[in-house]
Amino acid sequence: MKDIKVIGFDADDTLWHNEQYFLDAEKQFWELLEDFLPQHASARELMKTEMQNIQLYGYGIKAFTLSMIETAISITDGTITSSGIEKIIGYGKDMLAKPIEIIPDVEHVLTELQGKYRLVVVTKGDLLDQQRKLIKSDLEGYFHHIEIVSEKNNTEYLKLTNHLDITPSEFVMIGNSLKSDVLPVLNIGGHGMHVPYHTTWEHEQINRKIEHEQFYELETIKDVLNYF
Amino acid sequence: MKDIKVIGFDADDTLWHNEQYFLDAEKQFWELLEDFLPQHASARELMKTEMQNIQLYGYGIKAFTLSMIETAISITDGTITSSGIEKIIGYGKDMLAKPIEIIPDVEHVLTELQGKYRLVVVTKGDLLDQQRKLIKSDLEGYFHHIEIVSEKNNTEYLKLTNHLDITPSEFVMIGNSLKSDVLPVLNIGGHGMHVPYHTTWEHEQINRKIEHEQFYELETIKDVLNYF
Repeated sequence: MKDIKVIGFDADDTLWHNEQYFLDAEKQFWELLEDFLPQHASARELMKTEMQNIQLYGYGIKAFTLSMIETAISITDGTITSSGIEKIIGYGKDMLAKPIEIIPDVEHVLTELQGKYRLVVVTKGDLLDQQRKLIKSDLEGYFHHIEIVSEKNNTEYLKLTNHLDITPSEFVMIGNSLKSDVLPVLNIGGHGMHVPYHTTWEHEQINRKIEHEQFYELETIKDVLNYF
Repeated sequence: MKDIKVIGFDADDTLWHNEQYFLDAEKQFWELLEDFLPQHASARELMKTEMQNIQLYGYGIKAFTLSMIETAISITDGTITSSGIEKIIGYGKDMLAKPIEIIPDVEHVLTELQGKYRLVVVTKGDLLDQQRKLIKSDLEGYFHHIEIVSEKNNTEYLKLTNHLDITPSEFVMIGNSLKSDVLPVLNIGGHGMHVPYHTTWEHEQINRKIEHEQFYELETIKDVLNYF
């Protein structure tokens, strides 16, 4: 990994737990609606609503909450009570108020890399959510800055490397999503390291094996240090 | 206005109409609940919910929609039907899908200033919302870049001028909110130009007259050109 100047870290499920909170909320949501629909069917309906709304709503907990409400109304054929809706609003607020749980070894890795490379956070989601998480995590000091992008695609990563005044080949991105953190970075000539999270949002999953000389498949975040 | 290197523009209600859309949605909301509460009382309740939620939700249309739903449930004492909730979700979606309406003379002003100064957009709100608006507005090309901040306060403006590699005295901010666009910029030693919008969100209003040698009170955005 010579020539690397900047290391980009995905935030949710790479630096700290996130998807698990969505799954926990979703589980409550399924249980709430169990009298109307079996859990796996509620899950499918919610995913459908989320995908329909993503263009308009984007990502994040507020978008998720609105999609849960919409799905609950449709699943119950409009018979959901307002106390049901209040519960769903509560699931969302609980998520927003959750403490940040840092993934093991993240601090060790950041301590080792700090000073040797410019470290940045690259994340999508609601600005306020993500800033709050970074501050609550106490990891803010390790990073040069935080880049919040609306989509993790070729264009946005190219903008990022331009903005950082480096060539894509001087950039490596580390994250749990092949689709968002790895593939677009490889596409523009950068390096990508995949650190799987125990669960990955359906929307982020891809069904193919990556073979690329600038791609590194790791087991845990700690393995990052084998390359630097 | 010598020494100015960077001109910051607020986006909502400075470059394009925004608050009016919130007011239009709110009006529909009041009418929906008219059987339960007179309009001015609904307005007060909604504002109360918004203020309670702002720490958790931040700004933007999704936050506004969730607060409308919560308020409607409380105003109707839980008797609102799910079709009422669906209507509220629809108000939010309509807002998100609205075309961008640029405020008169904005393009003329930007054309005159472009090339002579570095122009940036400084805005708070949901990232995806704001980026979508900038692209839809066709104004993107005039700006060096867009800064989306979680709050418009002294700290964030200082970060901004550092980030831009200028001193605050080389920065002027133009916007419709004294509280967000002008006062914090004056506080850090920058210049502030106030261009009033015909309506300003209650939360943004302040009750005092500003006297400051780096403050400029304008009538319309066109008056900006008198100073450059």
